[in-house]
Amino acid sequence: MITLRIGIIGLGNMGSDHAKKLIRGTVPEVELTAVSDIDPNRLEVTRAYLPETVGFFGRPEDLMDSGLCDALIIATPHYDHPRLAIQAFDRGMHVLCEKPAGVYTKQVREMNERAQESGLVFAMMFNQRTNPLYRKMHELVHGGQLGAIKRVNWIITDWYRTQAYYDSGSWRATWTGEGGGVLINQCPHNLDLLQWICGMPSKVRAFCHQGKWHDIEVEDDVTAYLEFPNGATGVFITTTADLPGTNRLEITLEMGKLVCENNTLTLHKLSQNERVYCFESKEGFAQPSVDVSVVPAEGDNSQHMGIIASFAKAVLTGAPLIAQGEEGIRSLMLSNAMHLSSWTAETVQLPIDEELYWQELNKRIEESSLSKAQHN
Amino acid sequence: MITLRIGIIGLGNMGSDHAKKLIRGTVPEVELTAVSDIDPNRLEVTRAYLPETVGFFGRPEDLMDSGLCDALIIATPHYDHPRLAIQAFDRGMHVLCEKPAGVYTKQVREMNERAQESGLVFAMMFNQRTNPLYRKMHELVHGGQLGAIKRVNWIITDWYRTQAYYDSGSWRATWTGEGGGVLINQCPHNLDLLQWICGMPSKVRAFCHQGKWHDIEVEDDVTAYLEFPNGATGVFITTTADLPGTNRLEITLEMGKLVCENNTLTLHKLSQNERVYCFESKEGFAQPSVDVSVVPAEGDNSQHMGIIASFAKAVLTGAPLIAQGEEGIRSLMLSNAMHLSSWTAETVQLPIDEELYWQELNKRIEESSLSKAQHN
Repeated sequence: MITLRIGIIGLGNMGSDHAKKLIRGTVPEVELTAVSDIDPNRLEVTRAYLPETVGFFGRPEDLMDSGLCDALIIATPHYDHPRLAIQAFDRGMHVLCEKPAGVYTKQVREMNERAQESGLVFAMMFNQRTNPLYRKMHELVHGGQLGAIKRVNWIITDWYRTQAYYDSGSWRATWTGEGGGVLINQCPHNLDLLQWICGMPSKVRAFCHQGKWHDIEVEDDVTAYLEFPNGATGVFITTTADLPGTNRLEITLEMGKLVCENNTLTLHKLSQNERVYCFESKEGFAQPSVDVSVVPAEGDNSQHMGIIASFAKAVLTGAPLIAQGEEGIRSLMLSNAMHLSSWTAETVQLPIDEELYWQELNKRIEESSLSKAQHN
Repeated sequence: MITLRIGIIGLGNMGSDHAKKLIRGTVPEVELTAVSDIDPNRLEVTRAYLPETVGFFGRPEDLMDSGLCDALIIATPHYDHPRLAIQAFDRGMHVLCEKPAGVYTKQVREMNERAQESGLVFAMMFNQRTNPLYRKMHELVHGGQLGAIKRVNWIITDWYRTQAYYDSGSWRATWTGEGGGVLINQCPHNLDLLQWICGMPSKVRAFCHQGKWHDIEVEDDVTAYLEFPNGATGVFITTTADLPGTNRLEITLEMGKLVCENNTLTLHKLSQNERVYCFESKEGFAQPSVDVSVVPAEGDNSQHMGIIASFAKAVLTGAPLIAQGEEGIRSLMLSNAMHLSSWTAETVQLPIDEELYWQELNKRIEESSLSKAQHN
């Protein structure tokens, strides 16, 4: 079997987890040939469970120039994703990037352009797209049999984190270290699924509360109101402080309603299109009949390893990706739009003013506790 | 048994329904002694099912001056509630007012002041407060054992109405005839329950869409973001166009979560207060244990007749009311705030600028299709 020689850059929680799984042969199409981390201690820890045949590097550029890899998984802090991806494309290497694509769309746009020019395979680690529940929702909404979307409500408040989580690294939950809070760290998957299933909103008005529940400088509580190009509206509600949290995605369409909650997808299917029924009915309080059913959504939920396998197959055989790298900008655009709307206390049109976002982010980086600590 | 002699003003859907039930002796404490409606046809229809011993009047003032009643149920169009209530107080009559209290808080404030001065019994027909599910939520939140509220999400989109409903009267869904749409017609109960259970928000940013789903001039789709004095946030989402709609009220508190949906109240009770746990836990991803249970909420759900009985008992024996008349201004304040926020595209502080609301409402009344029809 021809395999893809992959290197992992960044051996934090995600990178080291991927390394452990790949070295066990979890993805037959992939051979883990090199790893890098700028932290010598972390690299040392990794030597304990990786064989000597794997190349170990401190600088990511040395890994890229080693000739050991044809493709990279980038699992570094968010800010570095675009820069490292561009360096990889320049060297003719395929890239699978951890979420988020970056911290601000301006830098991600450049990454996307360089990916396009390179003709190389570029994928995003949107592993929740492999969840059968969300795949089924995507299929049902895009299939068209339920008509146009009218409303989307996602209460996704089950990202609980204690103060100890935030205290585990000085870079955590700082504008300088991560560039945001729950939106940039926990929610990229949800924001990607939202746009993947429902398309991109055209307007966002968000209310982000920074350090509301934790001793941090970034947002840990967000309520966002969304408007879509067809006039549909929605809310996206998230926090890292609700216990127990909720994960309930409800999509109302012309032909009924989809509700995904408690790992169950329920379809409420109308016998008639509401938009037609509304104007044809002679009765003020009448409703067409509704058929309620649990949608079977079994099957492969391969998560990260499924994304890595699809990435390898795309390189080796040209098979389609689960999540194109270029699509990473969409969830980031949503996250940036929510920040910007909250900072300016105004409704933001999408695509956002990327220059303004970058300026506003920089103001916060200058005031960041991490920046101040680094300057002292 | 001493009974309360009650007159009903306005014999539309609600007024005639109350009359039919009262005449059957549904509320033993009450004797229906008179009715009035300015529409002679409607009055004639009512004669068919009411005995001749009941007094029939065209003008509400004539009913009030007849000496047949000691108390009134006001079930006229919304705009007339405050004026008629004040007339009743001036004559020493007790008042039970249908929801909403009025159309704008300025007029309702005057009604409340006159009620206070009169010392008479003044009640609001907030019959959903008799629902055991909401009574239980009120009890649990106010009991304090769940700690402070952190978040309130009410998706209340099961108020479906067809175009035929709106076409059934030229006054329907007009600024001149009703003074609003889903907020003033369908949602006063929900807005009252929201403030009754959770208290009044201090800020509102709402997005009301007028004539979005129906051929009407008032709002039929609303998403409102709420902030409470303690910092808690929430959303209130409603429409008359979703099918099937949702009625899901979720309240997250320091000690857990209450979810009311599908006529079931579920309590998710934490073993520890989240606000304490968050800062004491040494683990970043840990959570205290949760006990999930369905809250028994059986018992009396007497709705309108329960409210009327409690009103009669308050007059006859001084028993406490289920809903004080003066409390009607709160749900109306919320409804007015949502309109005003949407009209001005700004966050509105509560209490609202009542003069501004009245001016903005009048602009819409001047442009109303009903006003124009009346002038032609």
